[in-house]
Amino acid sequence: MSFTPTEYLPYDFANRRHIGPSPKEMAAMLKTLGAGTLDALIDDTVPKSIRQAEPLDFGKAKSERELLYHMRVVSSKNQVLTSLIGQGYHGTVVPPVIQRNILENPAWYTAYTPYQPEISQGRLEALLNFQTMISDLTGLEIANASLLDEATACAEAMTMAQRVAKSKAAAFFIDQNCHPQNIAVMRTRAEPLGIKIIVGAPDDLVADEVFGAIFQYPGTFGHLRDFTQQIGALHEAKAIGVVSADPLSLTLLKEPGAMGADIVVGSAQRFGVPMGYGGPHAAYMATKDDFKRAMPGRLVGISIDSHGNKAYRLALQTREQHIRREKATSNVCTAQALLAVMASFYAVFHGPEGLKAVAQRIHRKTVRLARGLEAAGFKIEPSTFFDTITVEVGLLQKGVMQAAVAEGINLRKVGETCVGITLDEATRSGIIEKVWRAFGIDRKDDDLTAEYRIPDALQRQSNYLEHDVFHMNRAETEMMRYMRRLADRDLALDRAMIPLGSCTMKLNAAVEMMPVSWREFSLLHPFAPADQAEGYRELIEDLSAKLCTITGYDALSMQPNSGAQGEYAGLLTIAAYHRAQGEGHRNVCLIPNSAHGTNPASAQMVGWKVVPVKSAENGDIDLDDFRAKAEKHADALAGCMITYPSTHGVFEETVKDVCAITHEHGGQVYIDGANMNAMVGLSRPGDLGGDVSHLNLHKTFCIPHGGGGPGMGPIGVKAHLAPHLPGHIDSDAPEGPVSAAPYGSPSLLPISWAYILLMGGAGLTQATKVAILNANYIAKRLEGAFDVLYKGPTGRVAHECILDTRPFEKSAGVTVDDIAKRLIDNGFHAPTMSWPVAGTLMVEPTESETKAELDRFCDAMLSIREEIRAIEDGKMDRDNNPLKNAPHTMEDLVRDWNRPYSREEGCFPPGAFRVDKYWPPVNRVDNVYGDRNLVCTCPPMEDYADAAE
Amino acid sequence: MSFTPTEYLPYDFANRRHIGPSPKEMAAMLKTLGAGTLDALIDDTVPKSIRQAEPLDFGKAKSERELLYHMRVVSSKNQVLTSLIGQGYHGTVVPPVIQRNILENPAWYTAYTPYQPEISQGRLEALLNFQTMISDLTGLEIANASLLDEATACAEAMTMAQRVAKSKAAAFFIDQNCHPQNIAVMRTRAEPLGIKIIVGAPDDLVADEVFGAIFQYPGTFGHLRDFTQQIGALHEAKAIGVVSADPLSLTLLKEPGAMGADIVVGSAQRFGVPMGYGGPHAAYMATKDDFKRAMPGRLVGISIDSHGNKAYRLALQTREQHIRREKATSNVCTAQALLAVMASFYAVFHGPEGLKAVAQRIHRKTVRLARGLEAAGFKIEPSTFFDTITVEVGLLQKGVMQAAVAEGINLRKVGETCVGITLDEATRSGIIEKVWRAFGIDRKDDDLTAEYRIPDALQRQSNYLEHDVFHMNRAETEMMRYMRRLADRDLALDRAMIPLGSCTMKLNAAVEMMPVSWREFSLLHPFAPADQAEGYRELIEDLSAKLCTITGYDALSMQPNSGAQGEYAGLLTIAAYHRAQGEGHRNVCLIPNSAHGTNPASAQMVGWKVVPVKSAENGDIDLDDFRAKAEKHADALAGCMITYPSTHGVFEETVKDVCAITHEHGGQVYIDGANMNAMVGLSRPGDLGGDVSHLNLHKTFCIPHGGGGPGMGPIGVKAHLAPHLPGHIDSDAPEGPVSAAPYGSPSLLPISWAYILLMGGAGLTQATKVAILNANYIAKRLEGAFDVLYKGPTGRVAHECILDTRPFEKSAGVTVDDIAKRLIDNGFHAPTMSWPVAGTLMVEPTESETKAELDRFCDAMLSIREEIRAIEDGKMDRDNNPLKNAPHTMEDLVRDWNRPYSREEGCFPPGAFRVDKYWPPVNRVDNVYGDRNLVCTCPPMEDYADAAE
Repeated sequence: MSFTPTEYLPYDFANRRHIGPSPKEMAAMLKTLGAGTLDALIDDTVPKSIRQAEPLDFGKAKSERELLYHMRVVSSKNQVLTSLIGQGYHGTVVPPVIQRNILENPAWYTAYTPYQPEISQGRLEALLNFQTMISDLTGLEIANASLLDEATACAEAMTMAQRVAKSKAAAFFIDQNCHPQNIAVMRTRAEPLGIKIIVGAPDDLVADEVFGAIFQYPGTFGHLRDFTQQIGALHEAKAIGVVSADPLSLTLLKEPGAMGADIVVGSAQRFGVPMGYGGPHAAYMATKDDFKRAMPGRLVGISIDSHGNKAYRLALQTREQHIRREKATSNVCTAQALLAVMASFYAVFHGPEGLKAVAQRIHRKTVRLARGLEAAGFKIEPSTFFDTITVEVGLLQKGVMQAAVAEGINLRKVGETCVGITLDEATRSGIIEKVWRAFGIDRKDDDLTAEYRIPDALQRQSNYLEHDVFHMNRAETEMMRYMRRLADRDLALDRAMIPLGSCTMKLNAAVEMMPVSWREFSLLHPFAPADQAEGYRELIEDLSAKLCTITGYDALSMQPNSGAQGEYAGLLTIAAYHRAQGEGHRNVCLIPNSAHGTNPASAQMVGWKVVPVKSAENGDIDLDDFRAKAEKHADALAGCMITYPSTHGVFEETVKDVCAITHEHGGQVYIDGANMNAMVGLSRPGDLGGDVSHLNLHKTFCIPHGGGGPGMGPIGVKAHLAPHLPGHIDSDAPEGPVSAAPYGSPSLLPISWAYILLMGGAGLTQATKVAILNANYIAKRLEGAFDVLYKGPTGRVAHECILDTRPFEKSAGVTVDDIAKRLIDNGFHAPTMSWPVAGTLMVEPTESETKAELDRFCDAMLSIREEIRAIEDGKMDRDNNPLKNAPHTMEDLVRDWNRPYSREEGCFPPGAFRVDKYWPPVNRVDNVYGDRNLVCTCPPMEDYADAAE
Repeated sequence: MSFTPTEYLPYDFANRRHIGPSPKEMAAMLKTLGAGTLDALIDDTVPKSIRQAEPLDFGKAKSERELLYHMRVVSSKNQVLTSLIGQGYHGTVVPPVIQRNILENPAWYTAYTPYQPEISQGRLEALLNFQTMISDLTGLEIANASLLDEATACAEAMTMAQRVAKSKAAAFFIDQNCHPQNIAVMRTRAEPLGIKIIVGAPDDLVADEVFGAIFQYPGTFGHLRDFTQQIGALHEAKAIGVVSADPLSLTLLKEPGAMGADIVVGSAQRFGVPMGYGGPHAAYMATKDDFKRAMPGRLVGISIDSHGNKAYRLALQTREQHIRREKATSNVCTAQALLAVMASFYAVFHGPEGLKAVAQRIHRKTVRLARGLEAAGFKIEPSTFFDTITVEVGLLQKGVMQAAVAEGINLRKVGETCVGITLDEATRSGIIEKVWRAFGIDRKDDDLTAEYRIPDALQRQSNYLEHDVFHMNRAETEMMRYMRRLADRDLALDRAMIPLGSCTMKLNAAVEMMPVSWREFSLLHPFAPADQAEGYRELIEDLSAKLCTITGYDALSMQPNSGAQGEYAGLLTIAAYHRAQGEGHRNVCLIPNSAHGTNPASAQMVGWKVVPVKSAENGDIDLDDFRAKAEKHADALAGCMITYPSTHGVFEETVKDVCAITHEHGGQVYIDGANMNAMVGLSRPGDLGGDVSHLNLHKTFCIPHGGGGPGMGPIGVKAHLAPHLPGHIDSDAPEGPVSAAPYGSPSLLPISWAYILLMGGAGLTQATKVAILNANYIAKRLEGAFDVLYKGPTGRVAHECILDTRPFEKSAGVTVDDIAKRLIDNGFHAPTMSWPVAGTLMVEPTESETKAELDRFCDAMLSIREEIRAIEDGKMDRDNNPLKNAPHTMEDLVRDWNRPYSREEGCFPPGAFRVDKYWPPVNRVDNVYGDRNLVCTCPPMEDYADAAE
């Protein structure tokens, strides 16, 4: 009998699993939109002039199973040796309870940045724990919720020092014992800002010559020094003292705060976050209370809610996401939230006694190692140390290192005659003997002599981690439940759509996440020999090639750890290109008014002048103004920064003209890739005239947001810019690095690679189309209730739409905030608020949301509109209504209910699940109170008791 | 400087992570108990006479990291080949979204059996989906919520057939095409019950001679037959027709229901559950509505709650856990809930179209494989098939199989001249060519001829999986959210203590669970060549040796898949021993009144007569009665079954006397290991006089309960019984197997092994002590409020305690049920209800709960006592009070509140978390209504709409 198989393709990841609407749902949506087919809608929406010539073709898409098989093959090409290289990256023991319940739990990894504090109390608490931990360990009053990596934290500390120092000196001093990548990134950052870098021994510091200085503690070669004297001298010269410190060492060592340090930075990687070939990890920054408003990055603070209960929130937000354009001196607008959360739980898991014991074990092992080497006659440096020693081996350097590799161990090459060894928590028994063998020493590791090689004066005297959270019962049962309770307080993608304009909160598929935990990807040191990272090389090369194909660029750098860092790297590349052409004077950057705040901030960071360009009535770039500004600044034009489709959610027809005008006047075009999810497979920035773009892998390419980081922002460039891409410390590239590790945060790359391999060219293109369909469907369903601010000439939007909620302030006293908070009652995370237009909501549903979920959202929005109408019509009180009182909590239900609407109306508006209702743990959070009464470390437990049981 | 390390041991898993109370908490608890030290308490509690001579010593305990390293080393000794052996075990593709969100999610795997329906609605819905799926695919009206494995399901079907058949014939017919392990397990089961087994070809069936017959579909060698005629003949003879069917094949094949089958059994393993070297998987049983009350196993049904809303619950519970002792004919009292949940989600994930497409792809590949073999001149059998063919190879059998292994493929040895090949969902491209190569065929797999080798008459005509849940949007986003919603409806160990008497709901540590997902453990076929399973061999040998050391036995069988199956296997072993001694007539078993219902049920299953023994006033075995009964039945005494410590939670001093008396009269002693958590390291059943015991690895040894299975119940025996342990189909052992796979559910064993390696001997012993401490602490704190029914002579309890709640029925009209449901409001799963004494609560906190959690529970119990007192004192209404109305739901808060107590009092009694409050999705479930109106498949969606939004 002949065989007629069903047409159902069960392993079609793109259409079956990643893309939300089913074919049936899509048909219904197209009908609502009056579009015959999806392609017709796309033709109607995306101008022909910008469409790419050839469809994306990456061959056959892989099934989930094929993908895992392929990943196994590739990952097995990485060799996991024991890396004792140190240099800021250390083996660590990830507590399995943290790995399983945080890193591998979608409730944590799919969460968005906690801008809506009412639905983010769980991760805000975890981040507050992080801040408290950093503040305690460094001995400084205030710490932020993490930065991208230690090297960029150093660079941020340098520029912050310049901001806060009263000294007007133009130079910054760098301790020569800083990790090489820290020095390199600070040099990169300093150059366009005109900061002179002086590298030298701490004793060489001439405080009057600098606005600040940074010291590494312990030094990269292991030295322990007290910087009290140097910092004292700096203070006398009205300059700033910065210390870059290993937080684990601070459990034993005198804290930088006690040395007078003004700013302390470092990496929390060794607090239970795998090395991952360089990242992601949480860097940190702590500072004195006086400087808190100058500190970059996110800061979790404590405020109260509308009932006066304690509530966490992001404090001083004006310092970041909402950067003040021209005044910006940093473009930091993200953090490494997931990794900071892991590090904070590591500290909760171990407590101060545990961390101290871990540090002591490491130190004890290092002493044993040193004694063995000394007994064999080797000269080791320094005489006092924590975990790192340097051994003089003369001509035998290569031989010793090779012998070590033969033993399964990577050592650090130091100069031409020395070898560095750094032990860590993960140094298993037997490793010390293997290291000795590499030095030709046959010795048993049984020397039980108690010896401490930390000088008395540098031993820590003060206590730390005294808050109750670090003294909770550390049984796994309690830890697991604490993590679950915090997770349950938050609303993440695993429960509802997060319709954030331009943040592309799409599916982070389980299969994409799985390889991240594999040891072949997670345990590599970023400076391990290249031949041990063949799997990574293959992954990075193939992913780069595919991203080039997608974007129309010729070369790619994986280094930037965020979109903003990508912008900065892209502009640096352009600047370097201009210099190479003898046009180094070019320093004007045209940026439309509608641009994201990071664009001008990034331009400032490369020392450019920002010239704003007007927007036309319809939100498009005002082409005439653009041309006029380009002509006016033609001699000095460095380039322009545009976003495509525009931040208004529209495919502008004039994008090629904008690029042409820029090129005509000697400039280069930076196309912001934030909205790439509307383009993949349809249009390529490289074809439109872009010279460089960054890609938000955490938006378009499925790296989860992690509650506010990690992210990656690689940049693609045209061939002429390729020679000017960021280099790294071991490369021959002429340019310096922009972040610590050669490839940014490589352990995230399997996610994006998996996504592309699973989707294939056709799948990626379909995803783009459905993202546009979903946005248009929402715009259509809300028609008549909410005005969509900007549309294309055919009345369509791109992949997002801006809903105008400004009229309701006048008509009903309802603000965009009221609507956002009311959406929590409906069971949704609010869309992006007041950006790019104040008083509006920007909605981006992404392709991963189903019609049912879009309808649930639209029903919620329409019911909100009816509530507003009831106020407008005088049927509801202007001040006491469900919108003003939103979000409603369980406590509201228990309290006496003296409201002009029912409990039912208050708590179960359309869209809200019934038994599966999400309850915010707090009522509306008071932002002003929080910024006025800034508290950014854990409050004493009795304060909690008041609020809770 | 000299070095004084802190004494804190950060990697001490036993005392730091597994055991709940911190040293400080323990000190406070001992003070409450008036015990000077933990050892003093233990000396006070555990009689000296039963203490073991030597402390447990397994060398140094491993840290979590060392454990994972060790597991990697051992697991790498398993070789993962592609097994095309079939025989009931198939490669399958586990959807990553299911693996991550179900199998690796503590919210699912730490849940208990859903006896408390109000806190189990999530997994009850998933299990109802399973039942619906099985019912649909088999074409029968009702299906249970899973059984242990296909072979035991066959045996259960056989005994059920005997129960329901009107034919009084004594024989049961087995199709010779049944899988060998199914035949073997049925033979084992039949023998002691006096059932005569006839194995033959279906055409040989003489219906009048049998009370039932079972047929395999498709046959183990691939044959497809329509059994309509045979079943018709059976029905005419008033006998029962059973079919054991592969559920995936039923998406293409005529369903057994359409052939008239009365009972259908099989395995849902290939629905996304890895082979795991044999288990665990969910077997299933479906039957006609007429026979539902005779069906073994758990059955999820639909009832209503006190507000008339739809609610799920376990139906007809009297058939299982609460087995009617002497009438029992099955001892099944568990299921494979977690695996059934996975299988049901697999069906939801794929839907009927997807399942059909998967089956078609497998069939098409098998046809291609067959055509290639045929083209090369091989003779293949059968001519029509689904996924399995048998190839005649004559003398080349060994050569072909070896050639296949060289290609990385395991084939099945069939007879001496044939090779069996079964393809599956996981058969990657290229595999077919490799198989051909093993046959010497060099051929490309590019034959696109459409050919269908399923006979027209056997093609499925009916629809299946038409319920909306199987047609939900299958995007991963929706799937993930559905899983999350269901998980959130349930209360599992990841949120609160589950203080179940004798169920030992202790920590299932993340690190113990991790290796379960590793491919080296999960992808092995149970009948793969032994040299490919060296890792498993090492694990099983070492774990067996350690369990022998712990129990004082000499040999161990890993085969039983549950405690009850362990009992049965233990009694079979004793019976075989008696037979070997020429004492085969011994068939009387003494069982104390207080025994778990499975004890007599198991005795029935081996054909023994149960003679009950009285309990003394204090709950102990009445030694005089025991002696009298033993003497009376001395000639026929087979043995006794006792539980130690007793089911009353007391260490009886007389246990050695009981054993001695039994031995004196020619009997063997079975000591039920359910309470082993009170003994490990302190006392060994083998030393007390036990000849055989089972161990609940899912209780004492950390295999999670999975919401009602999996479990394992290996048995330990003294040396004289070792030769009589269960065999398996490939072994030379004289006895038959009790379950399908040689080692039961081996992929669970890494969990128990990990636990023992992490704890070490001292840690295990300390855990036992703390389990006893925790139970005594609860008993002490509740003193005065609740009477503890049984205590030892010094006033201590063992690891659990029975709280007497019977007086309150009279004093306040409050039942044990009211208290159990009220505990849900307090945020707890109820203790075991009405067992072993009706109207009481049995509490076992385990060592993993912290003092804080114990106090939260005690506070809740004490507040309940106060509520009862208020009724007693007339301050509260007898019928309208928080106890009678418990549990309270969110809906209660929204509704008008016409109650004589406040919302606050109703919903937030002591113990309940505030923002982290657990809300049951339904009010109290009506059990009677559910059993009267039995509905055991998914209701139509409109029914949900009524109840929900």
